[in-house]
Amino acid sequence: MSTDKKAFLDVFPVLADEILGELRKHNMPQDAYDWVKNVSTRAGLVRFRIEPWVCFITTFPVVSTSLVVVHYFYTPFGDHLRITAPALLLTLSSSPRPTLAGKLNRGLSVVDTLRILRGDNITDEELFHARILGWTVEWVSSNCPLPRVLFFARETSSHAITRDPIQLQAFFLVADDIMDSSYTRRGQPCWFRKENVGMVAINDGIILESSVYIILKKYFKKTQYYVELLELYHEVTFQTELGQLLDLITAPEDNVDLSKFSPAKHQFIVIFKTAYYSFYLPVALAMLMAGVKNENAYSQARDILIPLGEYFQVQDDYLDCYGAPEVIGKIGTDIQDNKCSWLVNQALVRITPEQRKILDQHYGKKDSKAEAAVKQLYIDIDIESVYKAYEEKSYTEISAMIAKVDESTGVKKEVFTEYMNKIYKRTK
Amino acid sequence: MSTDKKAFLDVFPVLADEILGELRKHNMPQDAYDWVKNVSTRAGLVRFRIEPWVCFITTFPVVSTSLVVVHYFYTPFGDHLRITAPALLLTLSSSPRPTLAGKLNRGLSVVDTLRILRGDNITDEELFHARILGWTVEWVSSNCPLPRVLFFARETSSHAITRDPIQLQAFFLVADDIMDSSYTRRGQPCWFRKENVGMVAINDGIILESSVYIILKKYFKKTQYYVELLELYHEVTFQTELGQLLDLITAPEDNVDLSKFSPAKHQFIVIFKTAYYSFYLPVALAMLMAGVKNENAYSQARDILIPLGEYFQVQDDYLDCYGAPEVIGKIGTDIQDNKCSWLVNQALVRITPEQRKILDQHYGKKDSKAEAAVKQLYIDIDIESVYKAYEEKSYTEISAMIAKVDESTGVKKEVFTEYMNKIYKRTK
Repeated sequence: MSTDKKAFLDVFPVLADEILGELRKHNMPQDAYDWVKNVSTRAGLVRFRIEPWVCFITTFPVVSTSLVVVHYFYTPFGDHLRITAPALLLTLSSSPRPTLAGKLNRGLSVVDTLRILRGDNITDEELFHARILGWTVEWVSSNCPLPRVLFFARETSSHAITRDPIQLQAFFLVADDIMDSSYTRRGQPCWFRKENVGMVAINDGIILESSVYIILKKYFKKTQYYVELLELYHEVTFQTELGQLLDLITAPEDNVDLSKFSPAKHQFIVIFKTAYYSFYLPVALAMLMAGVKNENAYSQARDILIPLGEYFQVQDDYLDCYGAPEVIGKIGTDIQDNKCSWLVNQALVRITPEQRKILDQHYGKKDSKAEAAVKQLYIDIDIESVYKAYEEKSYTEISAMIAKVDESTGVKKEVFTEYMNKIYKRTK
Repeated sequence: MSTDKKAFLDVFPVLADEILGELRKHNMPQDAYDWVKNVSTRAGLVRFRIEPWVCFITTFPVVSTSLVVVHYFYTPFGDHLRITAPALLLTLSSSPRPTLAGKLNRGLSVVDTLRILRGDNITDEELFHARILGWTVEWVSSNCPLPRVLFFARETSSHAITRDPIQLQAFFLVADDIMDSSYTRRGQPCWFRKENVGMVAINDGIILESSVYIILKKYFKKTQYYVELLELYHEVTFQTELGQLLDLITAPEDNVDLSKFSPAKHQFIVIFKTAYYSFYLPVALAMLMAGVKNENAYSQARDILIPLGEYFQVQDDYLDCYGAPEVIGKIGTDIQDNKCSWLVNQALVRITPEQRKILDQHYGKKDSKAEAAVKQLYIDIDIESVYKAYEEKSYTEISAMIAKVDESTGVKKEVFTEYMNKIYKRTK
């Protein structure tokens, strides 16, 4: 582990205790105090373990043959993951390795950027404050996207049920739990119960977001850029929510309507849902800390980081379909999940009316044969070449923008080249 | 309608357009723009109609005899209410009259308080700004509590299902929708689909909260109290979330465990979940606007308004059980819903071990006979007298605190007496 990463991790318990201090101040009842303590601790320490859990879970239904209803909330704290099949819980400990997103890259970017901007003049106190801001970025990140509800009930359809009365019974017990609002069923938490866990999980996420402002007040109230800091968080939060909204109404998992898709919508979703908080936010925070006041410096940073974030997400979409599962650590599910992926949007503007029928028929179906049909269509129109051309063009354009950066505004080219080097032609 | 209320309502479209202006600035795609426009508009105009909808819906299962799965999200915009039985949708138009909470009291309190504090010197511009802050309070309010998921499936249990193959079929179609992720079933939106609507509804609520900061930046950035304004919102939001958390883990609807209850916990939940944002926030906002800087003024306000808010909520709990349905506009459901109500907490510290067994057995059951048993127990221990004594004591204590207010700090006694007169001995 790098020295910077270790130092970054060391700051976490200090911040978690600040938040708990607020609760002590109010004499919060012990069980709620313990709950928040658990949330805070896990928000830092479990962060490494969430992504692989997601990877594992998303691959699970492909191999499962028994009735499993999984109600999974994508939250910063993995323990909201509850599964009716106890065997699965055991398997969870053998998780594949983390993906890029689990590496605290967003948080560490604040520190990296400040180092570049301040050079050798950087003080320990500045580094400490950069790490604090880094954690606030991680907290905002862990709350985006919103909790996602996934139901996996595979190999169980009406005909399977009529064949097997025991499965029928099993499913009915789940249904019955809903009506009775009962808590457990044969010692296992029932599905309806997990619905409530979900409600708490959503509240937990919101508490984590509020915690950002407690930390900012404590450590940055006296700085000259306190108001700008608050406004930056408000702005980026709002932008992320807009991206989330467009994604939710464009590509709901259960209502496939490709006429809602378009490359322009994909771009909007990606920029608003991902690029602002993952790419612009960490750099803008470091710039505020470094005392950069020139508005042009921020607009230059935005003009470069937003396309860079877009490029990063397009890579993600590409790797979901074409990446090697053993390298990216997961089996892609974008096609089955009706995701508004870059690939499908590019396909949509390139296919014939006959191919469009194939896509309409197979996209977003929880069925590996349908998925294979979509993949074949991608091969037929050589979507890989379209991607390679996009990658090349994007790299050239962003590099040209970086070359033109006016460093007299207070920002440095190196901030952006660092990012480019981390991202360009990554395979995982 | 009072002049103040009309003026307050007139400000709303201006603010809604400010928020939409942010979306136009970003060239948000039309469908997402329309969605937010709908949310913003309804957040203002439908506000009056939400409470009665809740009232109606919560009484519905008591009278229903057919299979109805209702997935209802308590959000500011009533159109997220989707019901599988079309007949119910028709009935919704005949809604009972609004309760106190639907009367924009929180928002109007900002205006009322500023009028008292500024007296005849108040300007039209100040009133306009007070109305703006009033709307931000309404938005925060409409997002608290968190969306609640209620499932009603009455008169349908396994034995009913085996008796009636058509009902079996109906329920399985719902179950099947989950597996297929299909969108409609015989022209009706299916249950799983509504799950996603719920996710959007949660995002809508968060967008509404973010909108508060857009409005504050636009209208208050130049004021001397801008930072205090932002911090006040952050603080109250956090407090409300803590109250929500404690409520969720103390009294989940589906897991009755009265050993988690206590009068102290009830007090904490009520203060944090309700009193801060409903009582302290509007007054503190008006005080900031009036230029009150003395910290003692704010702590005096808090010391009076928090117990007042607590008293208000205790009344609410009392009226849920003892209020006349035709006056309060709803039939109380706290007992059936396992609510951490003042009544049950007071009962718990007053009952014999035998009575405790009755309570454990009947509280939180969706069953009118069980509810009647709890109500009988309340009569047996004369909980009404306990309430009357509490009401008297609370009134005396709060009045004494108001009498002692030091007006030289910048706050006025009249602010609090106004509140007291509105609330004391209300019957609805």
